Amino acid sequence: MSERAGQSESPRRATDVKSRDSILQEAARLVTVEGIEGLSIARLATSVGLSKSGLFAHFRSKEELQLATLETADRIFRAEVVEPALRAPTAVERLRALCEEFLRHLDRGVFPGGCFFASVAAEIDTHPGPVHDRALSIVAEWLGLLQTVARQAQAEGTIDPGEDAAQIAFQLDAYLLHANAQYVADRSREPLDRARYAIDRLLRNVAPTR
Amino acid sequence: MSERAGQSESPRRATDVKSRDSILQEAARLVTVEGIEGLSIARLATSVGLSKSGLFAHFRSKEELQLATLETADRIFRAEVVEPALRAPTAVERLRALCEEFLRHLDRGVFPGGCFFASVAAEIDTHPGPVHDRALSIVAEWLGLLQTVARQAQAEGTIDPGEDAAQIAFQLDAYLLHANAQYVADRSREPLDRARYAIDRLLRNVAPTR
Repeated sequence: MSERAGQSESPRRATDVKSRDSILQEAARLVTVEGIEGLSIARLATSVGLSKSGLFAHFRSKEELQLATLETADRIFRAEVVEPALRAPTAVERLRALCEEFLRHLDRGVFPGGCFFASVAAEIDTHPGPVHDRALSIVAEWLGLLQTVARQAQAEGTIDPGEDAAQIAFQLDAYLLHANAQYVADRSREPLDRARYAIDRLLRNVAPTR
Repeated sequence: MSERAGQSESPRRATDVKSRDSILQEAARLVTVEGIEGLSIARLATSVGLSKSGLFAHFRSKEELQLATLETADRIFRAEVVEPALRAPTAVERLRALCEEFLRHLDRGVFPGGCFFASVAAEIDTHPGPVHDRALSIVAEWLGLLQTVARQAQAEGTIDPGEDAAQIAFQLDAYLLHANAQYVADRSREPLDRARYAIDRLLRNVAPTR
């Protein structure tokens, strides 16, 4: 890194990285509106104002582009939803914060078509292949995170240890994704508030009885 | 109907109706696997073994075919889920039965890609037009039905009148559609049972306190 050759190369590299990154951010936005199957190099080239051959320098196939877009969307989701939520001091607060940050990322339109992975999972649920598998593994990671944090809350004594953490995660995720589906359909905030009410009722229901 | 002309025409009409109906049933199955935007006259012709011109005799455009497919799917859903459930004697039993029949129609694969309207709504939520509008109106009818039956249960005294019927409908629908999404992804029955548990807990929670 401190060699002259490294120094002279780094500006060009930085530009390449930035360019690839901004192309993939546009791809992630496009996917939530037009679908991941419609994400071709030709379609994305039009959207970012590059030539098809310019894009082929970054991605050698449609599938490589689709997989890279999933990783970018996952990184955006972690930065916008997961990382801020995990800063809360107790596990039950982290669980509430994961839900709240999810609802807020819908409301501020991080992706124009709502939750990126709900949109992709619904589109490709019956289309086997590497894109399908990676998308579903990211969805499973999110559900696994809700379960893990629910178990941490049981360990710290803020959720009844007799409750099933996987059931709690299922219900929380159900409220979030139903709010997403309804919000995307009509852009009303009512489903976001219905999800908040349901999350609050569930977490009060599963609190330890004194 | 009793005239000779009517009699001589009716066999031919019956054949046309049956043929159109069976074509649309195949179309409804195809849509839950391949999507409604991919439902073209050419694609459907291959699937049902008719010529494109043969299908054009039934549907003059892709949009007409898509709209007719929505009506067929709605009719199938009513016959398989709604009508059996509405035979239950009390409103709270009808509400439970609507949920249970929904889960069973997933489990027995009425549509190969799970809930027809969840699949279509997720695909076209950001694509305005008559197909979008009709699909979302059918989704809204289902949610409206859950609300209406929840209100009937409040009137008969099996759900607390202080509860918000729209919130109950939101939560029930959230469990059902989340079970659908997970069931379609991995064909495990676990999410169907998680939905049953959540539905049961909700309906016990909102029962009137004695």
